Amino acid sequence: MAGRFITLEGLDGAGKSTQLDAVRDWLAERGVDALFTREPGGTPLGERLRELLLSPDTEVGLDAETLLMFAARQEHLDRVIRPALAAGRWVVCDRFTDATFAYQGGGRGVPFERIAVLEQWVQRGLSPDLTLLFDLSTELAAARMAASRALDRFEREARDFHERVRGAYLARAAAEPARFAVFDASQPPATVRAAVQARLAELVGADR
Amino acid sequence: MAGRFITLEGLDGAGKSTQLDAVRDWLAERGVDALFTREPGGTPLGERLRELLLSPDTEVGLDAETLLMFAARQEHLDRVIRPALAAGRWVVCDRFTDATFAYQGGGRGVPFERIAVLEQWVQRGLSPDLTLLFDLSTELAAARMAASRALDRFEREARDFHERVRGAYLARAAAEPARFAVFDASQPPATVRAAVQARLAELVGADR
Repeated sequence: MAGRFITLEGLDGAGKSTQLDAVRDWLAERGVDALFTREPGGTPLGERLRELLLSPDTEVGLDAETLLMFAARQEHLDRVIRPALAAGRWVVCDRFTDATFAYQGGGRGVPFERIAVLEQWVQRGLSPDLTLLFDLSTELAAARMAASRALDRFEREARDFHERVRGAYLARAAAEPARFAVFDASQPPATVRAAVQARLAELVGADR
Repeated sequence: MAGRFITLEGLDGAGKSTQLDAVRDWLAERGVDALFTREPGGTPLGERLRELLLSPDTEVGLDAETLLMFAARQEHLDRVIRPALAAGRWVVCDRFTDATFAYQGGGRGVPFERIAVLEQWVQRGLSPDLTLLFDLSTELAAARMAASRALDRFEREARDFHERVRGAYLARAAAEPARFAVFDASQPPATVRAAVQARLAELVGADR
């Protein structure tokens, strides 16, 4: 079975971490050699930039922030993702370029066409085989986040910011229906888990 | 007199720092309000990235390095250069995008057309009014550097690297003769100084 590149996307609070476990379990049961990673991060440079970008003290302009995101992504692709795929492994990545379109684009207003220029520059045509988008109303996402832990800089943004992020995610999904699988994250985790695993089975089925 | 954007370029050892003083003195004598800055750096983010990029310990891929350079440049433009120019000040910058074409492009092999995509993304059409290029054989540049101080990561690169950097600088100058003034940096500093100041006088003359 050839390596596949899977990404998970969604607002914080939408249950990405829980469903990452669903993906992990499903692959482990089938003995699939998979690499789990995340953005921003996944490399030494990426982790340093992640720290810098998520710190409440960091003052970085929007365009520079976008370039830093793509610098981290470039390292991640070159050192982690592409070598793993080339070796036939699966790669499961917690957030990828769709998050930049959603947060920096929809949320903060970087024009989508400017983000697309960097996407092309960095990815040179490589795209996830499947993107699992966990969709949730901003009310529910905020309520879940408030209950769970301290908020970082992005999480403290206002509600309408999160509405724009959600809208951008859904627009990306609508534009690329073959790549995206959208899940209603307000459902019980076990229900979402079953749907995620069914979608993975479909992806593998497409291999045969 | 309207603000002008001046950049200084050249190999390390070509006397940029000395000639920066020539520019500084010339502007000070005329009471011109000028801002002196440098790349990579010039902002808090830029200085952090400069540290990261110039450290001998840092392992960063070529494409990511190029994106980091432009992230620092974006901050520099947005927070320092554009506001100063908008206020009518002169801006004198020690290295700018031509250095990326020379070092990451000519020196390390990032295709010029890929650098041009980021140049356009970040600068949105803004370009220096005048670029002072201090040209020197790599033999002389290396001899001067060896005599002066500890070498950083870029400076330790092999001679042929510096030949390619020099070649890329000269190609940039040949392609944009109106923007570039090229100085023979093997001449005595006082001779170069006089030539630099004559070129500045020409630039101001063009204002009238």
